[in-house]
Amino acid sequence: MSSAGAFMNAAGLPTGSRDVLPTEARELHEIEEGLRRAFDLYGYREIRTPAIELDAVIDRAEGERAAAYRLFDDAGRLLTLRPDPTIPVARLVATRLGERPDPVRVFYVATAFRPPTPGRAEAIELHQAGVELVGASGPAADAEVIAVLASALGSSGLSEHRIAVGSVVLIEAVLGALAIGEPLHGRLMAALRARNHVAWRAAAHEADVSGDAGRLLVDVPSLRGDASVLDRVSRAVPAATPAADELAATLNLLGRHGVAPAVVVDLGIVRERRYYSGIVIEAYAEGVGSPVAVGGRYDSIAARYGRDRPAVGVAIALPELHRAVVAAGAGPQPRRPGVVLVDGLDAALDAARAARRAGVPVVSVPDAADEARRLAEAEGWRFVARRDGDEFLVEDMEARETFRCAALDEIEDGGR
Amino acid sequence: MSSAGAFMNAAGLPTGSRDVLPTEARELHEIEEGLRRAFDLYGYREIRTPAIELDAVIDRAEGERAAAYRLFDDAGRLLTLRPDPTIPVARLVATRLGERPDPVRVFYVATAFRPPTPGRAEAIELHQAGVELVGASGPAADAEVIAVLASALGSSGLSEHRIAVGSVVLIEAVLGALAIGEPLHGRLMAALRARNHVAWRAAAHEADVSGDAGRLLVDVPSLRGDASVLDRVSRAVPAATPAADELAATLNLLGRHGVAPAVVVDLGIVRERRYYSGIVIEAYAEGVGSPVAVGGRYDSIAARYGRDRPAVGVAIALPELHRAVVAAGAGPQPRRPGVVLVDGLDAALDAARAARRAGVPVVSVPDAADEARRLAEAEGWRFVARRDGDEFLVEDMEARETFRCAALDEIEDGGR
Repeated sequence: MSSAGAFMNAAGLPTGSRDVLPTEARELHEIEEGLRRAFDLYGYREIRTPAIELDAVIDRAEGERAAAYRLFDDAGRLLTLRPDPTIPVARLVATRLGERPDPVRVFYVATAFRPPTPGRAEAIELHQAGVELVGASGPAADAEVIAVLASALGSSGLSEHRIAVGSVVLIEAVLGALAIGEPLHGRLMAALRARNHVAWRAAAHEADVSGDAGRLLVDVPSLRGDASVLDRVSRAVPAATPAADELAATLNLLGRHGVAPAVVVDLGIVRERRYYSGIVIEAYAEGVGSPVAVGGRYDSIAARYGRDRPAVGVAIALPELHRAVVAAGAGPQPRRPGVVLVDGLDAALDAARAARRAGVPVVSVPDAADEARRLAEAEGWRFVARRDGDEFLVEDMEARETFRCAALDEIEDGGR
Repeated sequence: MSSAGAFMNAAGLPTGSRDVLPTEARELHEIEEGLRRAFDLYGYREIRTPAIELDAVIDRAEGERAAAYRLFDDAGRLLTLRPDPTIPVARLVATRLGERPDPVRVFYVATAFRPPTPGRAEAIELHQAGVELVGASGPAADAEVIAVLASALGSSGLSEHRIAVGSVVLIEAVLGALAIGEPLHGRLMAALRARNHVAWRAAAHEADVSGDAGRLLVDVPSLRGDASVLDRVSRAVPAATPAADELAATLNLLGRHGVAPAVVVDLGIVRERRYYSGIVIEAYAEGVGSPVAVGGRYDSIAARYGRDRPAVGVAIALPELHRAVVAAGAGPQPRRPGVVLVDGLDAALDAARAARRAGVPVVSVPDAADEARRLAEAEGWRFVARRDGDEFLVEDMEARETFRCAALDEIEDGGR
């Protein structure tokens, strides 16, 4: 079906794959460091798991069979590239951290691998950062993870974002209270996962529930707003009140965490992964179509690795977050305060060494000033310098002025 | 041949694979940040390439077929997990950075994947950080990369290390000057790559070269020391003088970079990868058996991606560097200045929030003080606090003393 050249893009990479060039890599690293600072403030600690897992181990966590890259080792055993960071983290927490006192707080910065869905332009390598809070349940734990997410997005440089919180438990409580049996239950949940509100409404009307409860059943995936949304659920379907109150308690705690203004209830959110068993979380930012973060509660995974522990977590999509941070940024980045130094590899090496010792980045070029200027322009360095007698002649590419100085480590002060 | 359980280790991972737990992950991150600071001071900029490449693209760079994990995409096309970070970087520099002014300086922090050699306990995921200097040649470029390496190892926390520098060109110059033809030339180079000095000597004696030149041929892979080693080569085989002088010039520049004391000439180093075409570099540290870094010049790779540019680079093995840094460290790490706060998820949430705003990490636990103490012990946090009336009762787990304070953000000052 694919044309001969379609499997390789211009960079010589598989479709769905890309290189990250220096400017973007630096921005990504700054974003990652911002996330780490927030994770650290809440006591989350980094773990790193291998990219290659035994297929049988990953398979154990999935209700259905997830799309994944599979490969064989030299003995013919089936391996898999992690299709999701949550499952390896659950494996690690259950095995290596199984005896640690609850709660266990971990974070990761990792890549997940997903084969492309035919015909869709999707990334096959998903660079993510996330937190998992294991061994704690209830609104307090749910609220902390949402607060960490809000704090992390803020400290990554994204000042404006919106976090939507739904609840699989609340939806199930409504369906249970209204005695919605199969096959209707399955059709409703499938419609919700597919975000197909038309299909939901059609199935909900077939359920033939009358009055407020019937109207609520039809509307529930469209309910969106503050805690009053939950009041409507409790009034229309009193048996769902405990589940609604739990989500209301989470919202209340988010107020005390100081992040309530960014949070909205959205009962239409149900992540496609079936392991979610409580709240579900999605975060959005201006200028980015897909969520910058997704997550929720998944209490059932750990038990499959031998230790039953509740867990809640969220994964931030780093390329999406990067796009959002760049979109929110104010114009072009300033030049970096480094010096492109003519002859710095050789004749002016001693000056380069002294400047580096003072913390000034020096980019040595062997060539003439023209080449140095071209390089400074291409890479965004602020200064171009060359030796001139006992001094240096320095061009400030940002201020568009030239000055002289005795040593390169004076440059940064002069330029700032 | 392998027993039923041998493919999976206790953590449920493939043999040759491991998880990184929080303490080690934090140390690794600090090491990586140290490396980044050094790379930055020399003007190297990060790039990131995908883990999955087209097999045909990776294959183009290798003289012989390297061991690699291969997989198929949904259209049956052969993909490979990068077996080496250098080749993807060469691909990227030749394609995406092909028009950038020379020299191009890039660094990466990446994982390479290598299937295990049967019967050997080798890691299958190789976490590395490295630099590449592309479009510059000669001793000045070689010396800069060695200086960056020395500076990076230092700023990662490894104060003592040794960098050995050899030269494929110099060895070839000696063999060429002595008119060593095939099959002896091939046998000698194979012995060198295998570090089999006995086999080298046997082959060298067969060459039947007399006098100083004959003795040098026998001894050359054992020559190790300062620049005087190169004088011996020039005296015994005058035709090798230009190659010896080039390496001597590199050593001289390393003196001006301020890193000469850590550097030794070792003519026995020839990396197994055949793409090296000039200097070869290995770095060692106390307490670690394998090199903490390897590299060299490989001028021929870029041309295979359509742009002929000289290149020199070095890759640091992060797990080995971590072991060396830990081995060189002075005893146990101090506890981290964070607070494990009883009821911090709920009743004391406001105090937790205030402390985090002041930059104090707060680890909230729902349980009693005993659980909090267990968690602080397990994770290495310094303080355990609980509300007591209007104040907090704080236990300093390091100083083994208890004090009271009005707010948690005072703790760090009090404790330091």
